[in-house]
Amino acid sequence: MTKKKIPDIIIGRLPLYLRALERMATEDTIVTSSKELGEWVGISAAQIRKDISQFGEFGKQGTGYNIEFLSKKLREIMNIDRVWDVAIIGAGDIGKGLARYQGFLDRGFRVRLAFDNSPDKIGTKIGDVVVEDIANMVKSINEAKVKVAIIAVPAENAQSVADELAKTGVKAILNYATICIGVPEGVKVQYIDPATHLQWMTYYL
Amino acid sequence: MTKKKIPDIIIGRLPLYLRALERMATEDTIVTSSKELGEWVGISAAQIRKDISQFGEFGKQGTGYNIEFLSKKLREIMNIDRVWDVAIIGAGDIGKGLARYQGFLDRGFRVRLAFDNSPDKIGTKIGDVVVEDIANMVKSINEAKVKVAIIAVPAENAQSVADELAKTGVKAILNYATICIGVPEGVKVQYIDPATHLQWMTYYL
Repeated sequence: MTKKKIPDIIIGRLPLYLRALERMATEDTIVTSSKELGEWVGISAAQIRKDISQFGEFGKQGTGYNIEFLSKKLREIMNIDRVWDVAIIGAGDIGKGLARYQGFLDRGFRVRLAFDNSPDKIGTKIGDVVVEDIANMVKSINEAKVKVAIIAVPAENAQSVADELAKTGVKAILNYATICIGVPEGVKVQYIDPATHLQWMTYYL
Repeated sequence: MTKKKIPDIIIGRLPLYLRALERMATEDTIVTSSKELGEWVGISAAQIRKDISQFGEFGKQGTGYNIEFLSKKLREIMNIDRVWDVAIIGAGDIGKGLARYQGFLDRGFRVRLAFDNSPDKIGTKIGDVVVEDIANMVKSINEAKVKVAIIAVPAENAQSVADELAKTGVKAILNYATICIGVPEGVKVQYIDPATHLQWMTYYL
């Protein structure tokens, strides 16, 4: 698919639409409208129609969107009509929780590698993977051709992990460390930061 | 402060601006520009000026924004010029990680209560709090007048926890369970969902 330049903010909403559609599908719903989808995700119907129309004509006026069809199209657009191997760096509470998380596979991801620097953790099994010594990280990630990594190390170690990841083919990093990390051009970073989400809500309190 | 209706999407960007400003401050920077701030957060300078100007005149043309002043104003706007007590429901990997997380207090939050239904966990200490029996949740939250809760239980239990929280004064819920929860009118919910963040990035791979 040739891609026209679509604003990041629209791309960022696609996973939310897909998640809502997948939930609707479990309730045996066949068709939805931009209005209903909007109520699920808290975005206006007009915005949803505009966002989705960026990628083609996936709905019919008066009929709405076929949930299965639109979900399939969104998966194709987001490149999750396949499974991506993921490396987790840091096998503490968060890393362990992620490795054990059963929901990834349905949604396009499989934890393939995990790393830590603690002798207590190296060699132990978390989820389906054995924790490797972080010293082997660059080599193992390159051998496994992993492109997606999750950083779950303390903030003070996150940049050095990111620097090592720059020596691999990793192009997408989900960072749980509460610090901004510098990465090479062409590498995407997303942050999971509970305080940011909480701050968003306290505005309304 | 009387609040005019500001779009949620703008409110959602304020914590990102604040996080960037706080990082800049640790590097002894005094003043920043919408351009520099934009580079930190990946949002255009024009959008940042527009967002911030919704709340008042906090910068000067040609001089930019004083970091300390703008941070203070953003904290006031987001109601985090105080500390909010937080209840964590679920003392598994995620709940434990959150309870131990040292970064909350600087950013407006303090874990005050934690709950679980497992006899193995009730009575144990995570971070600075002792895990209570979830059967006491409504009573304890109401006594402590906690308004902010984090749900970190398995997906299948999340809705019943949300239903119990509806009997308390909790008005802001951060949900780590990978399921949409229904809450009463006036309660805000945010989701932490790693797969959603990963899907955002795989579009670009």
